[in-house]
Amino acid sequence: MFAPVYFDHNATTPLDPRVLEGMLPYFATQYGNASSRHEYGRAARRAIDEARQRVACAVGAHPTEVVFTSGGSEANNLFIKGAAAYLKPGVVAISAIEHPCVREPAKQLIREGWRLREIAVDANCRIASADFCAVLEEKPALMSVMLANNETGAIQDVSSLASQAKPSRAWFHTDAVQAFGKCPLDFRMLNAAGVHALTVSAHKLGGPKGAGALVVDKRIELQPLIAGGGHERGLRSGTENVAAIVGFGLAAELAAARLDVRQTQLASLRAELEAGVVAQGATVFADINVRLPNTSYFAFPGIDGETLVGKLDRAGFAVAAGAACSSANPEPSHVLLAMGIESSLARAAVRVSFGMENTTQQVRDFLAALNDTIVQLKGLTAVTS
Amino acid sequence: MFAPVYFDHNATTPLDPRVLEGMLPYFATQYGNASSRHEYGRAARRAIDEARQRVACAVGAHPTEVVFTSGGSEANNLFIKGAAAYLKPGVVAISAIEHPCVREPAKQLIREGWRLREIAVDANCRIASADFCAVLEEKPALMSVMLANNETGAIQDVSSLASQAKPSRAWFHTDAVQAFGKCPLDFRMLNAAGVHALTVSAHKLGGPKGAGALVVDKRIELQPLIAGGGHERGLRSGTENVAAIVGFGLAAELAAARLDVRQTQLASLRAELEAGVVAQGATVFADINVRLPNTSYFAFPGIDGETLVGKLDRAGFAVAAGAACSSANPEPSHVLLAMGIESSLARAAVRVSFGMENTTQQVRDFLAALNDTIVQLKGLTAVTS
Repeated sequence: MFAPVYFDHNATTPLDPRVLEGMLPYFATQYGNASSRHEYGRAARRAIDEARQRVACAVGAHPTEVVFTSGGSEANNLFIKGAAAYLKPGVVAISAIEHPCVREPAKQLIREGWRLREIAVDANCRIASADFCAVLEEKPALMSVMLANNETGAIQDVSSLASQAKPSRAWFHTDAVQAFGKCPLDFRMLNAAGVHALTVSAHKLGGPKGAGALVVDKRIELQPLIAGGGHERGLRSGTENVAAIVGFGLAAELAAARLDVRQTQLASLRAELEAGVVAQGATVFADINVRLPNTSYFAFPGIDGETLVGKLDRAGFAVAAGAACSSANPEPSHVLLAMGIESSLARAAVRVSFGMENTTQQVRDFLAALNDTIVQLKGLTAVTS
Repeated sequence: MFAPVYFDHNATTPLDPRVLEGMLPYFATQYGNASSRHEYGRAARRAIDEARQRVACAVGAHPTEVVFTSGGSEANNLFIKGAAAYLKPGVVAISAIEHPCVREPAKQLIREGWRLREIAVDANCRIASADFCAVLEEKPALMSVMLANNETGAIQDVSSLASQAKPSRAWFHTDAVQAFGKCPLDFRMLNAAGVHALTVSAHKLGGPKGAGALVVDKRIELQPLIAGGGHERGLRSGTENVAAIVGFGLAAELAAARLDVRQTQLASLRAELEAGVVAQGATVFADINVRLPNTSYFAFPGIDGETLVGKLDRAGFAVAAGAACSSANPEPSHVLLAMGIESSLARAAVRVSFGMENTTQQVRDFLAALNDTIVQLKGLTAVTS
C-alpha cells in the first residue's frame, strides 16, 4: 500500500512506535481500573503515577500540578469554565488567535454575565503590545494567551505577558498544545512569571489521542467539568484512560529529550521548503524567527487553499488548509484575519507542519509536485478568466 | 508471571483481543485527525462513521443519535449539565442509587437554583413506586434513573418509569453503562416509552477505556461540556480518539451478539458462586431475578469488606468492596444505605462481577480460598473480641 507523505503534524502526529510498545501491556494484561483495590488496580495506579511524573518532568512542573484530561480541548474548557465558576463575572480576555476550544468556552461565559475581550495581534501574529496594555486597563479576571499558534506557529512571550498582567491579579492561562515538544516549556518558570495554568496534549507530540493535561497552580480553584467519583484530585472524574496516559508520559519524555537537535532538523526542512515556495511565488505568513521550527504557513495568491490541498492529496502529500480541527468551517482563518491579511489571500492559505520522520527528499518531492500543481491551477485560472 | 483471577468486570473489563486487533491500525498507520481533508483524515473519518454505525446498531439507535465522549462519566455530565443549561431551574430527580457521575453533576445544579430530589429504592434496590409517584407530583424538569446498578446489578424497569413520567414532560435520562452487553438494550423502544437519552461506555464491555457515548433524542437541546471545533454535531469538541472509538464500535457489536448465550453462562457462574457463599454464611444483596447475570453482591456479617478484598487479592482473586470508581471513599456504599441495609453490614459488602473468560473452576477455587479466609478472619475476630 502506498502511504502518502505526512506533512500535517500540527493536526496530529504518528504514534511513536516506542510509545505504542509501552501502551500495549495496559490493553492486553494490565487492564485494571486504577481505582480498584487489587493487583490489577494497583498496577494501573502505578502506571498513572509514573506517567504523571514523566509529564510533570517534561513540562517543569510538580506531579501534583498535572491534571489528566481526555485531551487539549477538555483541558482548555476545564480552565476557562472551571475558573469562571469560582470568580465573580468580569472580563475574560483571550488573544484573537486562540484555538476554538479556548474561544468557544470563553464565548459561553457571556451568557453568565462575562464580557469577552479579544487581544489584538500584529501582522506577524504576535500580541500587539498597545492593545495588551489597553486590555489590562480593563482589569480582566481571566486571561488566556496561547504559547504557539497552531496555524502560523508564531510563539508569544507568554512569560513577559503574564508578568505584565500580574498586578491585575487575573488568572492567567496559556494553551501550550502546539508548543510542547517543539520549543522549551517550563511551567515552574512560567508560573513564577504569573502563568497559573497551561494545557498540553499527547497526540501532538507522538503520543496517543485521548490524553491531555491541565498543568495548574494549586492555589487556583476550579470547578470540575466532569464531576463524579473524584478522580484527579476531584478535578476530573471518570475511569482513567490508563493506556493513553501511559503513552502520554512516554511521549512527553521523548519530546523533552534532545529538543535542540530536533528543532535544528525541523528548521532545516522548513528552510528548504520556504526557499522553494517563495521561489514559486508564495507569500509566507508570520515569517519570523519566534515561530515553531516545524510550521510553515503560506499562500499562492489567487489559488484556493482547499483546492490546492485536494490536488496535493491526490499527488501523495498530506497538508492542511487553515486549521484542521473543525469539521466544516468554510470561513477563512480567524488567525489570518486577526493578522490583517485580506480575506482572499487568507482563503489561499496552506499549512505544512513537519515531524521528525520527514526527510529532505520528501520536501524536494513535495516542491516538485507543488510546482506542477500550481502551473496546472494557474493554467485553469488563465483559461477561465 | 502469575495472573490473579479477575472477577471485577463491573469496574472494567479486559480488552477483547479482537477489539485490540481492530484498533491497532489506527495507532500505527492510520493516525490521521478525522477533521483533516487528506487521505489520513478521511480514513479516520470513515473509521469513526463505521464505529458510530456499530454502536448505534448495538443499542437500537440511529447513528446520528450517537454522540461520542471520552467515557460514561463525561456522557452523564453532558446530559445533566447540558440539559440543565437549556431548562429553567426546577426539580432534578435522580434515583438514590445513581453512580457519582450522575449524583455529583446533579448536586452541582443546586447552586444554579435547582432542587435535587432523590427517588427512594426498596430493599431489593428497585425504585419504590410510591416515591416515584410522589416525585412526579413535584413536576421534575430533569430525571435520571440508571438501567442497571453497578453494585447490586439490580435492573430497573426504565421503560415503564419513563412512560409514567411522560405527562410531566421531564427530560428523562438513563445510565446504561452497566446494562449494555449484559441485558437487552433498545434505545428505539426506550425512546418511544419516553427515555430521551442513555449513556454507554466501551470499557465495561470488552472495549477500551477512553470511549463512551450519549445516545440522545435529537429533539433534546444540550449545551456542550467541551466547546471548541464543533465536533460531534457541536455537542463534544476535541480531536476524536479514533482508535478508542473504533474499539468501542467493535466491542459494542460483539456485546450485542449472542447475548442470551452469554447471559446463561454468566448466570450459571453466579448460581454456583452464590450457593457457595450462602453455604458459608453470607447474605446476598438484591437477590432477585431482575439483576445483571454477572453480578453478585454479598457480605459476611462482622467481616470488613475491604479487609476481605485485600485477603482475597493476596490469595489471587481480584474482587471489589463496594463501587471501585472513586479513589478514596471510606463511607459505606450509598446504594446499600438507600436499600435500608445497616451501615455495619454495608461495610462488609463484597462484589464479584464475572466476565466471559471466567470459568466454573475459577469459581470453585475462589470458594475454597474464600472459605479459608473467612475461617481465618473469624478466628482473628474471636481472638480479639
